[in-house]
Amino acid sequence: MPNWLLPENIADVLPSEARKIEELRRLMLDNFRLYGYELVMPPLLEYLESLMTGAGKDTDLRTFKLVDQLSGRMLGLRADMTTQVARIDAHLLNRATVTRLCYAGSVLHTRPSGLHATREPLQIGAEIYGHAGLEADAEIQELALASLALAGFDSVRLDLSHVGLLRAIIAQDAAAVRDEAALYTLLRAKDAPGLRELTAGYDAVTRDALLALPNLYGDIDVLARAREVLPPLPGVLKALAELAALAGSALGRAEVAIDLADLRGYQYESGAMFALYVPGLPNAVARGGRYDHVGEAFGRARPATGFSLDLRELARLLPTAERKHSIRAPWGSAPELKEKIAELRKAGEVVIQSMPGHSNEQDEFECDRVLVLADNGSSWILKNLG
Amino acid sequence: MPNWLLPENIADVLPSEARKIEELRRLMLDNFRLYGYELVMPPLLEYLESLMTGAGKDTDLRTFKLVDQLSGRMLGLRADMTTQVARIDAHLLNRATVTRLCYAGSVLHTRPSGLHATREPLQIGAEIYGHAGLEADAEIQELALASLALAGFDSVRLDLSHVGLLRAIIAQDAAAVRDEAALYTLLRAKDAPGLRELTAGYDAVTRDALLALPNLYGDIDVLARAREVLPPLPGVLKALAELAALAGSALGRAEVAIDLADLRGYQYESGAMFALYVPGLPNAVARGGRYDHVGEAFGRARPATGFSLDLRELARLLPTAERKHSIRAPWGSAPELKEKIAELRKAGEVVIQSMPGHSNEQDEFECDRVLVLADNGSSWILKNLG
Repeated sequence: MPNWLLPENIADVLPSEARKIEELRRLMLDNFRLYGYELVMPPLLEYLESLMTGAGKDTDLRTFKLVDQLSGRMLGLRADMTTQVARIDAHLLNRATVTRLCYAGSVLHTRPSGLHATREPLQIGAEIYGHAGLEADAEIQELALASLALAGFDSVRLDLSHVGLLRAIIAQDAAAVRDEAALYTLLRAKDAPGLRELTAGYDAVTRDALLALPNLYGDIDVLARAREVLPPLPGVLKALAELAALAGSALGRAEVAIDLADLRGYQYESGAMFALYVPGLPNAVARGGRYDHVGEAFGRARPATGFSLDLRELARLLPTAERKHSIRAPWGSAPELKEKIAELRKAGEVVIQSMPGHSNEQDEFECDRVLVLADNGSSWILKNLG
Repeated sequence: MPNWLLPENIADVLPSEARKIEELRRLMLDNFRLYGYELVMPPLLEYLESLMTGAGKDTDLRTFKLVDQLSGRMLGLRADMTTQVARIDAHLLNRATVTRLCYAGSVLHTRPSGLHATREPLQIGAEIYGHAGLEADAEIQELALASLALAGFDSVRLDLSHVGLLRAIIAQDAAAVRDEAALYTLLRAKDAPGLRELTAGYDAVTRDALLALPNLYGDIDVLARAREVLPPLPGVLKALAELAALAGSALGRAEVAIDLADLRGYQYESGAMFALYVPGLPNAVARGGRYDHVGEAFGRARPATGFSLDLRELARLLPTAERKHSIRAPWGSAPELKEKIAELRKAGEVVIQSMPGHSNEQDEFECDRVLVLADNGSSWILKNLG
């Protein structure tokens, strides 16, 4: 095998793609800052126990493990930054107030999430801690939509769901509480026969609600249908009201869909959840939601809600940025030449000094002008290249 | 052990420090771009063989290793990005022309390089491929100095050395060629008695040159002294002439020192080398030099020279950036309020909407203004906070 092959689902990012990613990264981080989100940088490696605190089983399987030769203990390479940022909020900052944090960094997965998915996503996201009310969810949703708008996506679909529905339905029935794990598996698989069989002995209200759930997806009218077919439990009513409010706040900014059958975050989320879709990609490009339990696992219960997306995947969907035209200059150490070049660069121009013997080379920067000596060698001027 | 402790020499970067690092990162990458350097992003994980190609033994020991469950092969976490970028130049871009590349990313080390050194430096650097002449070395040196100037360091020391000297001295003597590894070890340790003992049977010219080398450090006059005490071999004269030219091009931008005894890069460098020092840190903050062999190891010989530095270490030396003052706004979904906030953010203002019940909280953003309803509730205006 040649020594320059890369592992499967691992790739270099070459200049044109890297430029797109870098631009998106800056746009989004700058926007987070305008909303008051502070940047943090958690480490790539942590003790495995810390990294797994508050994380689900799937995160465990996705995490690369290795031995720390300093301590002899197991380390994990982060597969997700959400719990790391929750740890920072809970212990390092240790504020009692509302705290807004954002982050951008690579995460690594032992296995790709799909055939062509990268095992090294570049995760960027924002989180708000310390406020349990729906306002925090609304701000995070707004920020996620604003991030895609900044990236140039003008046609976005927002799918809303809520883990509170299933939680409330299960909590009212001892049989369902006992079968919670099995119910979750059947519902995620949308296995209607299996669901009917398991719930055969349940109270009729619980059973009907559980059987109705997988079909409650579609446009905003689903909320009205849900109010009819689901039992009027406080948890159910609260969840439906929250979804209506969040759907309302996204009107005009995205096409809103309701998917009460989406249980992806059931294991670690605790409230409203959303997923954003753009044309050209069947999977969600961004996901967010409330997960109040994460801080608890670090010994400090703090309400939390946030979103994240993979910048590498998002950048792939965007057209290649136009190359900025640049200036070719000869090599030389004459102070006038050096000064002229410094002045052009200060004005934001890319100036490439040709190395001797390479002055006719084409490179990736399309040089449209060249710096030449004029006025009998007394000054340097720009000449257009035809 | 509490589940929020981090491994030794691994740390979170909190907001004030993260902001400094992010600002430096952007300043330097933007400046690289003005010189025509294109950004690339090599992966964090590679097959161990690729990562070790062209790298020294010390890189091997610093590299975390783990098993790839997809291929069953050994992977390494990059401990240095230089060979990765050389691989990209050699195989992915595959250009015959001069190529300028830059990068910024985390690297990981199994052991810290010093008691308080991080095991996760944030390496940023620039490389130029395809030009063997000294012009490339001069441009890289200029770029390294410009990077520190951008970071705000106005007092920088540039230490110059050259692996060509020792190479030329050893090459002329069969006994020295045989003892190369032992000579290198003794010279690095500045072990004069050991050196005298090993070279006892050598030709007098070689012996005197090897014994003189450890003392050839100091200001620029060292070059004149070296011309007197070292044999006038072509390799020696070429190296001294290159050092004189590089020292000349740095005049007025840094205090220049010559250290012909510095052999740190002897195993993989191939020409002039430099190290940059700033007040407050005994170790070099940036290192660079020529290493023409790296591309060769990937099957494509390309002259190469570059430099890199650790942004985290550099940022630690800088004063904390002043916090930008920001605006506190109440929560609300009134279109006029939303519009006013959007307008302020568009103008670059940080506007933080207070979550209901948290309006009197202090946070990290020092709010010096607040958005209030005025004119009998008809418009939103900014009021100074005393």
